[in-house]
Amino acid sequence: MIPRYSRPDMVSIWSPESKFRIWYEIEAHACDAQAAIGVIPAENAAAVWKAKDVPFDVARIDEIEAVTKHDVIAFLTHLAEIIGQDTARFVHQGMTSSDVLDTTFNVQLVRASDLLLSGMDRVLAALKTRAYEHKDTVRIGRSHGIHAEPTTMGLTFARFYAEMDRNKNRLEKAKWEIATGAISGAVGTFANIDPSVEEHVCEQMGLRAEPISNQVIPRDRHAMFFATLGVIASSIENIATEIRHMQRTEVLEAEEFFSPGQKGSSAMPHKRNPVLTENLTGLARLVRMSVTPALENVTLWHERDISHSSVERTIGPDTTITLDFALHRLAGVIEKLVIYPENMLANMNKFRGLVMSQRVLLALTQAGVNREDSYRLVQRNAMKVWEQGADFKTELLADPEVTAALSVEEIEEKFDLGYHTKHVDTIFARVFGESA
Amino acid sequence: MIPRYSRPDMVSIWSPESKFRIWYEIEAHACDAQAAIGVIPAENAAAVWKAKDVPFDVARIDEIEAVTKHDVIAFLTHLAEIIGQDTARFVHQGMTSSDVLDTTFNVQLVRASDLLLSGMDRVLAALKTRAYEHKDTVRIGRSHGIHAEPTTMGLTFARFYAEMDRNKNRLEKAKWEIATGAISGAVGTFANIDPSVEEHVCEQMGLRAEPISNQVIPRDRHAMFFATLGVIASSIENIATEIRHMQRTEVLEAEEFFSPGQKGSSAMPHKRNPVLTENLTGLARLVRMSVTPALENVTLWHERDISHSSVERTIGPDTTITLDFALHRLAGVIEKLVIYPENMLANMNKFRGLVMSQRVLLALTQAGVNREDSYRLVQRNAMKVWEQGADFKTELLADPEVTAALSVEEIEEKFDLGYHTKHVDTIFARVFGESA
Amino acid sequence: MIPRYSRPDMVSIWSPESKFRIWYEIEAHACDAQAAIGVIPAENAAAVWKAKDVPFDVARIDEIEAVTKHDVIAFLTHLAEIIGQDTARFVHQGMTSSDVLDTTFNVQLVRASDLLLSGMDRVLAALKTRAYEHKDTVRIGRSHGIHAEPTTMGLTFARFYAEMDRNKNRLEKAKWEIATGAISGAVGTFANIDPSVEEHVCEQMGLRAEPISNQVIPRDRHAMFFATLGVIASSIENIATEIRHMQRTEVLEAEEFFSPGQKGSSAMPHKRNPVLTENLTGLARLVRMSVTPALENVTLWHERDISHSSVERTIGPDTTITLDFALHRLAGVIEKLVIYPENMLANMNKFRGLVMSQRVLLALTQAGVNREDSYRLVQRNAMKVWEQGADFKTELLADPEVTAALSVEEIEEKFDLGYHTKHVDTIFARVFGESA
Amino acid sequence: MIPRYSRPDMVSIWSPESKFRIWYEIEAHACDAQAAIGVIPAENAAAVWKAKDVPFDVARIDEIEAVTKHDVIAFLTHLAEIIGQDTARFVHQGMTSSDVLDTTFNVQLVRASDLLLSGMDRVLAALKTRAYEHKDTVRIGRSHGIHAEPTTMGLTFARFYAEMDRNKNRLEKAKWEIATGAISGAVGTFANIDPSVEEHVCEQMGLRAEPISNQVIPRDRHAMFFATLGVIASSIENIATEIRHMQRTEVLEAEEFFSPGQKGSSAMPHKRNPVLTENLTGLARLVRMSVTPALENVTLWHERDISHSSVERTIGPDTTITLDFALHRLAGVIEKLVIYPENMLANMNKFRGLVMSQRVLLALTQAGVNREDSYRLVQRNAMKVWEQGADFKTELLADPEVTAALSVEEIEEKFDLGYHTKHVDTIFARVFGESA
Repeated sequence: MIPRYSRPDMVSIWSPESKFRIWYEIEAHACDAQAAIGVIPAENAAAVWKAKDVPFDVARIDEIEAVTKHDVIAFLTHLAEIIGQDTARFVHQGMTSSDVLDTTFNVQLVRASDLLLSGMDRVLAALKTRAYEHKDTVRIGRSHGIHAEPTTMGLTFARFYAEMDRNKNRLEKAKWEIATGAISGAVGTFANIDPSVEEHVCEQMGLRAEPISNQVIPRDRHAMFFATLGVIASSIENIATEIRHMQRTEVLEAEEFFSPGQKGSSAMPHKRNPVLTENLTGLARLVRMSVTPALENVTLWHERDISHSSVERTIGPDTTITLDFALHRLAGVIEKLVIYPENMLANMNKFRGLVMSQRVLLALTQAGVNREDSYRLVQRNAMKVWEQGADFKTELLADPEVTAALSVEEIEEKFDLGYHTKHVDTIFARVFGESA
Repeated sequence: MIPRYSRPDMVSIWSPESKFRIWYEIEAHACDAQAAIGVIPAENAAAVWKAKDVPFDVARIDEIEAVTKHDVIAFLTHLAEIIGQDTARFVHQGMTSSDVLDTTFNVQLVRASDLLLSGMDRVLAALKTRAYEHKDTVRIGRSHGIHAEPTTMGLTFARFYAEMDRNKNRLEKAKWEIATGAISGAVGTFANIDPSVEEHVCEQMGLRAEPISNQVIPRDRHAMFFATLGVIASSIENIATEIRHMQRTEVLEAEEFFSPGQKGSSAMPHKRNPVLTENLTGLARLVRMSVTPALENVTLWHERDISHSSVERTIGPDTTITLDFALHRLAGVIEKLVIYPENMLANMNKFRGLVMSQRVLLALTQAGVNREDSYRLVQRNAMKVWEQGADFKTELLADPEVTAALSVEEIEEKFDLGYHTKHVDTIFARVFGESA
Repeated sequence: MIPRYSRPDMVSIWSPESKFRIWYEIEAHACDAQAAIGVIPAENAAAVWKAKDVPFDVARIDEIEAVTKHDVIAFLTHLAEIIGQDTARFVHQGMTSSDVLDTTFNVQLVRASDLLLSGMDRVLAALKTRAYEHKDTVRIGRSHGIHAEPTTMGLTFARFYAEMDRNKNRLEKAKWEIATGAISGAVGTFANIDPSVEEHVCEQMGLRAEPISNQVIPRDRHAMFFATLGVIASSIENIATEIRHMQRTEVLEAEEFFSPGQKGSSAMPHKRNPVLTENLTGLARLVRMSVTPALENVTLWHERDISHSSVERTIGPDTTITLDFALHRLAGVIEKLVIYPENMLANMNKFRGLVMSQRVLLALTQAGVNREDSYRLVQRNAMKVWEQGADFKTELLADPEVTAALSVEEIEEKFDLGYHTKHVDTIFARVFGESA
Repeated sequence: MIPRYSRPDMVSIWSPESKFRIWYEIEAHACDAQAAIGVIPAENAAAVWKAKDVPFDVARIDEIEAVTKHDVIAFLTHLAEIIGQDTARFVHQGMTSSDVLDTTFNVQLVRASDLLLSGMDRVLAALKTRAYEHKDTVRIGRSHGIHAEPTTMGLTFARFYAEMDRNKNRLEKAKWEIATGAISGAVGTFANIDPSVEEHVCEQMGLRAEPISNQVIPRDRHAMFFATLGVIASSIENIATEIRHMQRTEVLEAEEFFSPGQKGSSAMPHKRNPVLTENLTGLARLVRMSVTPALENVTLWHERDISHSSVERTIGPDTTITLDFALHRLAGVIEKLVIYPENMLANMNKFRGLVMSQRVLLALTQAGVNREDSYRLVQRNAMKVWEQGADFKTELLADPEVTAALSVEEIEEKFDLGYHTKHVDTIFARVFGESA
């Protein structure tokens, strides 16, 4: 985790304070459940809640851990200092450290998911706003980086909206995947604790009880979670790449917002670099790099080994923090992206009318000109555009062989942009689920 | 794709014959839709179906492609040879090659998913059968490869069942992800073809119309698909690793089935290698290796570039074929796995009764012995087991300090396996959704 | 492996014929070594060479394998049919299958490396030729996709040359890494065969004896090999991306060669897609995807398990075949790349002279104008270029405040391209090791 | 980077203090070089060195950066506060930020490499010591986890030594790969600075001048560097896995050192978990996960984009810190690994003598018994061992058909462990380059 690529809300989910608070809640709820089935006295269970609003002293816990060499014991020792030894001895009964640690990790992932979902909402809102704003802003569609047929800037935003909306659905599923907890003992048999404790704690913590666990929650869940984050990151790179392309000096159809006061902006007006989207490209790689180790983590020896732990200590916070930051950076870029419709038109007309050559070719054929002749006619006029910078429509209108086959109106019609935008509303309705 | 790691059913989905048949169906359904809106004559649309039961000549298509350098044109030329030029000229009108190619790829992925789902069903059935068979077969649970507490072999199978069942749900979602088609033209604007054609074709081919496409279907869908296959593969490795561990000479709690006639089986009865599960470990890596390029494929330049294509030509068939083979190999291994319950017991008792030392320690404490003394009592008897191979329970029963605190019955109870298996039925009910 | 992305020379290295020929040579050389130390009769060792020029019948070997279920035994059985049973019984004595299989794999990787090296030589030659050809072809250097300072096209080629030359050195090292063989027995102790046999065979096969093996050659060697191929692939993508950028409609500084006869070339002269370099981008991903499984293959249980085998059966041929094809495709693209120097100049002058604004700013400062004033002077003239399409130099020369600080000659000098190209020869000398 | 998985020496290489000190040295050496060619006054160049022993105030630099939004300018401003404005204005002349930043990154990677190399030396020393210590400690070699033939523990250590020694050579090469610097300007043309400055600075910083750069040093170098770290990490996992296997309860041939005072050690003597090697398995994944983004970083747009930067800010420190920690953790594990030779013997004899069955089979054949009979003889005795726990040699000696073919001495000889260890010295001489 790098401070410059992080937001405080997400960082705080992974703080020691948050972690200990979750530990505490799990232990306290477990005591309630233990009391309910008569394993521990009800008054002691109730007394555990005395620490509800008492902040834990992280430094003190660290101090104890330096002696005990065991994080959960250190925490319980500190808890005892707050709630008293008489009550503390009923805490954690029949539980193993993993019950607490693993359930906590999933609580954190769920909370991280909620933040990520809200980041995605911001991205979606920005994309939708810009899509409607530029629904009819015509620009050239490009396949292979080469001009193909006209489209609109709104369709580009709408396409990204649909992609991010799919990602949001995926993340909701991924959140659901890891929203389970386990309090099932050293090998998952509930030998030392009743399954009702697990059920109560999970319900209170907003989780489902893991149907079958083995000291740890099975890691296919986490693999799916991080794989999903990897897909989201790839979509971020996809959008970032579009913007980087649009900002190229030769294209200049859009620019990342550059505040007027920014030094150098007007002495070198051409040198505004798309550094935010370039950065997003790199951040996408950082998010994606967690996918492979998360997949490798699925295989554990027998009832569990701890090989996955160091991986998760890293990718748990780092990946969610980076993705959270990236989502908000992306939203900011989209919200403020400066669009240049006039440059879009200028680019489309770089080879004056040539992008319409295929429509003309088709029209000639449909008008009864044979394939070879149609091709020859288009070609001789197209080459004048390509080599001499002529205007395609003008040339066609001046070519008697062409006008013999097509009327002026027919030729004009082939250059009508409305032909290409006639279904934009239909597509918008599909994407945004509204009549446009 | 390696023949030895493939099954014919899956291979045939990716054959040229299958591919051309899908192309044909897409074109024919598109003609129907075009006829319905009056773009082409109904009789010609009907006539396209003349090729319905005529096998395509792949060699002939290849021959034409060698000349035209274009696969779709080669196919259409061959189709014309079957349905006649008069009808053929109405085929593919207003469509681009990608409309056909991309929709076909998704049809193939959907069909591949169906085969994979049936492979998963076989794995699930095998796991469930073996789980119930060994529901009460006690064996030692191991954390870190080290004996922890007793569990049952049935719980191990049930755990894998739950994991595979999650994977099946994931695959159903992944199949849904790629079950879309697009017939939207060169940049996705439907400039040359009505959206109703896309809707009709998709419905007929068992797909949903892609809400917004851009010559190609967006690649986040495929990324999610292959990422899901990667998770499934990781679970296969997880199960394979368990079996490899069980078959180790020193453990020998299970063996892959070894047919009695297999050479060498009885001259070297100790040398039966878990080669199928080792192979599954490698196959898992092969499936997983498609995840990263699938993620990298998400980013395309503007309305599309073709960088994703070579990747998909490879990972489309290879990954589904390998996973399909792996699922069936895994199912076979589980179905026939030879389990040795007696070895499980012998292993559990390797350090005679020592795995119960923690229960005894707890019992002493609960009986009022202070922590230091409890620890000292357990330790002195445990060390006799560890160093001299004594029996733990026998030693405890002979230790007056122990028997002063715990009755014989209480000591005996600590060695009762039923303590550990008492919730097996509960867990089975959770996993298999039935009263056990 | 996909036929369309493969060259016959590399494919043949991985053919069954090649494999069996290598198996044979290993066995025959091993017999020589066994005879030299008196383990088998010299005349029998000599007689093994009778098969030297006899082609093996792959179908026959497959037929035998279908019965014996063991590939090496099937081969030896077929060999016996050629050299006679009396001699055949001395073949393979004291050896294990892995001795043959693993050494063969490395022989194949070495031969594949030689082909790859020759592919790299072709790429290097093409890059060097084009570098010298365009040593002085000025174009704008771009950082962040935005115009920065002038450079030359030759420097771009030279930069790629230096990168590929590093890759060649890496591949030579990688080839050296896997140029070892092992004939050391079931666990690598030479219990059943003398180390001198390994030494002789390796020497004859162009390998070094693996200092310590364990049935198999350690897989860190192969991991390093495939990791190196992954780096080379990434450089291919780097070069391919540059060309894709150059061919963009708005940039058009270069185009992949498009044969004049190619259909459509002149009716749609603007629509020439950089499909070869897009394809190379995808192929790079395919090569890279072998890196992770190759790294995962390093860990084998104890003296060996066979998890690595299925991975290598796939990535051995597939990765080398794909990279070989990619290198030659890249070489072809570079050799025939059509460069448009006039478009390079036009692009550089898109914002007429504006890329020189920083030099002017510096010159003003050095001429004693204070920082704020310098900035203001540059800015007001730059904005005329940016907003009104004026020419920067013309504006500066017409600005009395500027000309008060800088003479006409000084201003002219700031627009001299020679300032930027003065060290091109120095750089060429560094890269190509020659006085330019 | 996680504090618990880091060592201070490596962390300090990546501290702000270290970074600023390197920036300073680069700037100061650049001034010397600029003075040497008369670009700046010699006395000012000399005056820059006034800051040589003055610690930089990181907080102060951060404070300035909060205003200037530019890290290098912030540093130069702080430097001016130390060396005075008159001298400071000569610093950084003609340079771009990347000249400083990129060269610094490589200085840090070189220093990190040196630390890693010394970690590897510690691992190598430990492996060598343990190899000689257990050169003749016999244990069973296992293929597929199944007993194969005897080997020695020393050979296992020697094998790991050879692997790590290869890794050390690879790391030396990788260090060499990134030991270059660049001071070549905004697009690498040296337009604003003489190449001699780059040469002088690089020489002083222990680097080579990058022959051709383009604002940044080409990223294939870094890709190769991180790929190499990935291979080393995989070898660490390989060794860790061997130890985890050895410590399994059923195998117990070795244990990670467990200090006598460690709580619980003797009350649960069976429960000593190989947590350090499990942790190393996870750390290996963390190191490896940098390989793919490092490969993706190779492709930069034109003369550079900044997509690689965020990746490197993370993987630069994190990967080297994790690997450094892992190497020392591994060294510690090996140095103190508790080996149980008696358990090795016991394991080997688990199926009493059965691992020798293949030698007996071969001996019978060589003694003239035909293949079927030999097989039958071995089989019937082997099955007594397998099924009834008999001793193989005893059974063979009591089987008249066997003793008719083989003398007692011949039978005894087949069970001689010396047969398997006779080439251990030869192998040690190969690995350690010494007469054993």
